[in-house]
Amino acid sequence: MKIILIGAGNLGNQFYQKMINNPNIELIQWVNRSSKLDKSAEGISIIKNLSDLKSADIYILAVSDDAISFASDQISKESFLVHTAGSVSINALSNQKRKGVLYPIQTFSENREIDFSKFYFGIEASQKKDLSILIKLTDLLNTKYILMDSNQREALHLAAVLVNNFTNYLFTEAKKICASHQLSFDLLLPLIKETIDKFEVLLPQDAQTGPAIRNDQHTIEKHLNLIRDPVLKKIYLTLTSAIQNHYGNKKL
Amino acid sequence: MKIILIGAGNLGNQFYQKMINNPNIELIQWVNRSSKLDKSAEGISIIKNLSDLKSADIYILAVSDDAISFASDQISKESFLVHTAGSVSINALSNQKRKGVLYPIQTFSENREIDFSKFYFGIEASQKKDLSILIKLTDLLNTKYILMDSNQREALHLAAVLVNNFTNYLFTEAKKICASHQLSFDLLLPLIKETIDKFEVLLPQDAQTGPAIRNDQHTIEKHLNLIRDPVLKKIYLTLTSAIQNHYGNKKL
Repeated sequence: MKIILIGAGNLGNQFYQKMINNPNIELIQWVNRSSKLDKSAEGISIIKNLSDLKSADIYILAVSDDAISFASDQISKESFLVHTAGSVSINALSNQKRKGVLYPIQTFSENREIDFSKFYFGIEASQKKDLSILIKLTDLLNTKYILMDSNQREALHLAAVLVNNFTNYLFTEAKKICASHQLSFDLLLPLIKETIDKFEVLLPQDAQTGPAIRNDQHTIEKHLNLIRDPVLKKIYLTLTSAIQNHYGNKKL
Repeated sequence: MKIILIGAGNLGNQFYQKMINNPNIELIQWVNRSSKLDKSAEGISIIKNLSDLKSADIYILAVSDDAISFASDQISKESFLVHTAGSVSINALSNQKRKGVLYPIQTFSENREIDFSKFYFGIEASQKKDLSILIKLTDLLNTKYILMDSNQREALHLAAVLVNNFTNYLFTEAKKICASHQLSFDLLLPLIKETIDKFEVLLPQDAQTGPAIRNDQHTIEKHLNLIRDPVLKKIYLTLTSAIQNHYGNKKL
């Protein structure tokens, strides 16, 4: 399979690493504007300009959401172009007859290799034969896929923001609390791990514990007195009240 | 070491399991009001009443926060009594001369065994020699400890609410979003796992991604349009604005 990869952010770099040494994938070009390498690295042609694109079976856009539609306009109408964004409709590829989406349900960080066999790509294509190409590609990349339309993908991206971005921010706040009391954040890691591990046997709605679900107003007041930052206070009140609201009729 | 265990909730049951087969611990009595077993099980005397307590090196209260002070009043002044609550001061054991705290920095669920060697107990004692008893006990239980005073422990408990209770609630909301779009919550598990696993190499404040930190108003608006539930909308707005506030001067 001949592939052109466009973009060199965290995801672009992961794709590059998975593709260069894959005997079944021929990486024709890598559009990498930040590369200091001249023309080629590891036998791959590195280019900076979309006007220099060659022919390929699939063109993968691993660029920021805002750049998707812009890139689409510069790439041939006949090319099978796929984007990788969670919250962008397939129709943002407005210039192409053959559109697709290859959305990794995962988070990528710089210099951290991710095992592609352990998460799913949400895939979608405007033409049936192109869906087969995408499925074949997930197979070559040794990863898993699930078919979903743009509405489902956008909802899943919202859910991903809750479980990844928002929880990460709560961890950041927790770390600040620890630091201001001369405690290591590492003390909380086993608790954080168990919070997730218990999904093996419990659904999140059945795993809820803590002062909010117990309606333990005494502890809630203590916590609110401890919190000096008005932003964190608002987070605490909002989530406590959401939990009480959710479980109010069932457990209290 | 002679121990009397008071309480048979999730934590009480875990303690019981770790203690009954431990050759270095002599579990004298277990105060378990919900037990249907008569008097004894596995050689341990099961009692329902605090007035029937025998003598022991340490009395462990694994009861609800509200019951700590009540229990203290019924237990001999001379006993070394420890409670296990995160947000209750050591001074709640108002009746004892010898007070202590043995706070597990972990979450416990019914019928789910937790490896004691993988988390810390925050410990505290009003008398130095009793601190040695607590340290010895953590050693016998093959667990780890860290000294902390009641103020530190209360702050850590607040941080634990953020990383456990609040994140669990976000997972519950994410699952609802998935379900309403015919998607399995399991699709998010690799993402959730990686959110935590990357703490091995990244601090949470350096791992923040998503539309809020990117100030991607377009995606934020899309998400807000997707959310019908006003409670979830408030959570989304509160956390998005907190992230923007936190990183506003640094990354935007």
